[in-house]
Amino acid sequence: MALTRTSDQTLTDQLVDRFAERIRMRLLPAGARLPSVRACAHQQGVSAYTVVAAYDKLLAQGLVEARRQRGFYVRDLLQKTAAAPAQDGKATSAGVGLAEIVRAASPSRPSTARSSGSRINAAALIRGMFYHASDHPQPGSGVLPVAWLEEARFMSAAVRKITNLETLRQGSLTYGEPMGDRGLREALAQRLTDVDIAVGPDQIMTTVGATHALDIISRSLLKAGDPVMVEEPGWSVEFARLDALGMKVLPVPRGPDGPDLAVMARYCETHAPKLFVSVSVLHNPTGYSLSPGSAHQILQLAERYNFHVVEDDTYGHIAPPHATRLSTLDGLRRTIYVNGFAKILAPAWRIGYIAAPEEIVERLLDTKLLSTLTTPSILEKALALCIDQGQLRRHSDRMRMRIAAARARAVQVALEAGVTFASEPAGMFGWVETGVDTDMLTQRMLDEGYLIAPGALFHATRQPCTLMRINFANSQDPNFWRVWKRVVAESGAAASGGA
Amino acid sequence: MALTRTSDQTLTDQLVDRFAERIRMRLLPAGARLPSVRACAHQQGVSAYTVVAAYDKLLAQGLVEARRQRGFYVRDLLQKTAAAPAQDGKATSAGVGLAEIVRAASPSRPSTARSSGSRINAAALIRGMFYHASDHPQPGSGVLPVAWLEEARFMSAAVRKITNLETLRQGSLTYGEPMGDRGLREALAQRLTDVDIAVGPDQIMTTVGATHALDIISRSLLKAGDPVMVEEPGWSVEFARLDALGMKVLPVPRGPDGPDLAVMARYCETHAPKLFVSVSVLHNPTGYSLSPGSAHQILQLAERYNFHVVEDDTYGHIAPPHATRLSTLDGLRRTIYVNGFAKILAPAWRIGYIAAPEEIVERLLDTKLLSTLTTPSILEKALALCIDQGQLRRHSDRMRMRIAAARARAVQVALEAGVTFASEPAGMFGWVETGVDTDMLTQRMLDEGYLIAPGALFHATRQPCTLMRINFANSQDPNFWRVWKRVVAESGAAASGGA
Repeated sequence: MALTRTSDQTLTDQLVDRFAERIRMRLLPAGARLPSVRACAHQQGVSAYTVVAAYDKLLAQGLVEARRQRGFYVRDLLQKTAAAPAQDGKATSAGVGLAEIVRAASPSRPSTARSSGSRINAAALIRGMFYHASDHPQPGSGVLPVAWLEEARFMSAAVRKITNLETLRQGSLTYGEPMGDRGLREALAQRLTDVDIAVGPDQIMTTVGATHALDIISRSLLKAGDPVMVEEPGWSVEFARLDALGMKVLPVPRGPDGPDLAVMARYCETHAPKLFVSVSVLHNPTGYSLSPGSAHQILQLAERYNFHVVEDDTYGHIAPPHATRLSTLDGLRRTIYVNGFAKILAPAWRIGYIAAPEEIVERLLDTKLLSTLTTPSILEKALALCIDQGQLRRHSDRMRMRIAAARARAVQVALEAGVTFASEPAGMFGWVETGVDTDMLTQRMLDEGYLIAPGALFHATRQPCTLMRINFANSQDPNFWRVWKRVVAESGAAASGGA
Repeated sequence: MALTRTSDQTLTDQLVDRFAERIRMRLLPAGARLPSVRACAHQQGVSAYTVVAAYDKLLAQGLVEARRQRGFYVRDLLQKTAAAPAQDGKATSAGVGLAEIVRAASPSRPSTARSSGSRINAAALIRGMFYHASDHPQPGSGVLPVAWLEEARFMSAAVRKITNLETLRQGSLTYGEPMGDRGLREALAQRLTDVDIAVGPDQIMTTVGATHALDIISRSLLKAGDPVMVEEPGWSVEFARLDALGMKVLPVPRGPDGPDLAVMARYCETHAPKLFVSVSVLHNPTGYSLSPGSAHQILQLAERYNFHVVEDDTYGHIAPPHATRLSTLDGLRRTIYVNGFAKILAPAWRIGYIAAPEEIVERLLDTKLLSTLTTPSILEKALALCIDQGQLRRHSDRMRMRIAAARARAVQVALEAGVTFASEPAGMFGWVETGVDTDMLTQRMLDEGYLIAPGALFHATRQPCTLMRINFANSQDPNFWRVWKRVVAESGAAASGGA
């Protein structure tokens, strides 16, 4: 990971490439400050001259901008590339970035910083998923290791079976059913009885993963400018999408038992929100699960202030039995239940679903038809087969046990390295208090070949944060924690030295 | 198709079921007037008493409403079911229909009739796709017959191959690449050289069908209230989606050579539109293809008034060689090229793509990530295999010839039945002038077991129309045209008798 003098490239060019790649991958997000020349020279073991030359090249490439007396900052690539091809040099109004569109669409937005903040966070988080930092297991990853998912090869076998069966193949020659494959919806309805949600297949609609489900719900129930309560910290894609659709995000702090009910009540009084979006069980990134008491109070608020609740149960597959779901208590009257399979099957299958109150199903279906028409039926039929044959249930059980074992091991190794957990370790993710700015830490850990997930990515506004999320499945290597400890110590020293 | 006295059900209940099913399937769209009691009794061969009893039951079921002195009208199901579950009887603001959301989001909209009109049209058109009117070939269908698509079984074989290959299977265990499978994007770039579009894989992004592509583009480049030019007649899903997103649809009449340039120029002067959406080749529903001269002038307008052009090439697979594409002339500077495979492969595969100017690719990618994260990679890998092995090209060639043969036969049979074509027959669809209101005709033809596609569905506003679209592949049966001729004659007689 260190720059090398024996390379074909000069040290300057190696440094330029390193920064350029991170900027393009959004791992160095728009607005981030590059290290000072002195700090960078020290970190990378090169001369100040090399760093100055590298920063100049990045400036020439338009990837960073210099602010007088304050150093170099990453430019917003969307803004940079947004100008339409106008020969006359006149900027086109169609050429504004997403952030500007969001701002323009929603004048009532609290601050423009928030909009572009969540967009930058989401872009960084998502692009990070696809970034190959090194061959090490990556603690910042949001998915289970490929080797674990290989156990779910029954999905591939099911797809082969579907394409071999004449009658089933015929089914994929027309547009699938608008609501999704009937067999899958029946299997899902059956599966929902496990969590005591009684719902028929006619209230279940398939989607292209849980992300699409959340997109359809917000487009169906909200209009630009509408206030929505979302748990914070949370999944930044949700913040960014609501922002992009022009909605007003009201972040609700998430605690061990559930969302902060006092904050919610205040929002209800002042903003009359239309929706509350919650990851009730094994919340990402904290691992918290909703208490029955909190669930009851959320539903009382929803009744009193007349809003819908979206329950994103993405981590439900690996939850302990008897975890509390809002949809179970409510009986899908005000709650809309969302789930997907990206966490226990291969993410690339992209199958998700919505179970909704009967009276809004038609509206959700209309939005689905306008956004993707239908969903790929062959994959849905294959999943139905796997559920019907019990393979998915057995696989979920194995994954839950495997995650529990990985978590025990990772927590032990982390504690030995002196780590402080910000929340009781549970589920797939750990929420770690590092004591240093994790945006900075991310850059230093990348130098070492490790991708981590800085806490800033899980907030609706972009601000310094000392937390980071780890994936227990990928955080059992003592070497990672040794490197982490050293880099944290260096960062702490640099910060106090610089202050 | 006639009501029967030997059934278990009373004639009244049979009539109720017939209307109720059509209303639920949106084949009798919101706002449509039921036939007068006398006309219905005559059409169905029952007594006026039976019709009155049936209409009363429909009223009791909330499917229709009575307007004093004017008869019975279909209620808007979305509005009907929109009320949220409020025990206190207070309607929730989250419970408004899509149409109301649209109206609220865009106060500058010309008329509310337009919004709900296009929504109703799109819903009717899409639901019609999935309606089984009878075992006859259905002239109103928008896709090729299943028996034809069975020829493309190479896609199933390719999927089996992918799931069998260890290395390729591994690829589907992570989230696919954000832009879509690299192999597919390379194959598509290669294929685009056939239509003289030179573009690298980095400017190609896969989507969940062409519908998703168009959704991503409008969400990336437009904000609520922005004016967009769209060809009319056209694909009502496009009108409805733009409406649902709160954009201002400016319909541009489509002629044999292309869109009406004078109308476009006027819109440019008065509305400064951001986008023009065009099906340039084998336009749906007219079958028109853009002339090189019109293409040039559209691009000149785009340059002068600074808008982007979306070229939807859905029917390009079956187009004659050397058809003019805007993207070819423009070199993807202001044009954004969209295509999918629903017309020649199975619609349920749901694979589409966008080829875009380099400077907007990042913004499109951000929107894709927010809407579905990624797309199902296994299907993309399978399609790449089929393109690389030449199967798709050979299949497209066969389909083109098969459609040409079906068209020749269907046109002959239609002309023998006295049909007038509103445009020169070309491609997959015929655009037929019936001389009678085709919304009414649709209901009468359904009684006979035939689904037709009334012209009203292809307009941005809901208004009476005497045109209908036929699918040449499904319109070769002389019996269909005999029935059609009789029903048209009856409708014409009824209209003049009633007037």
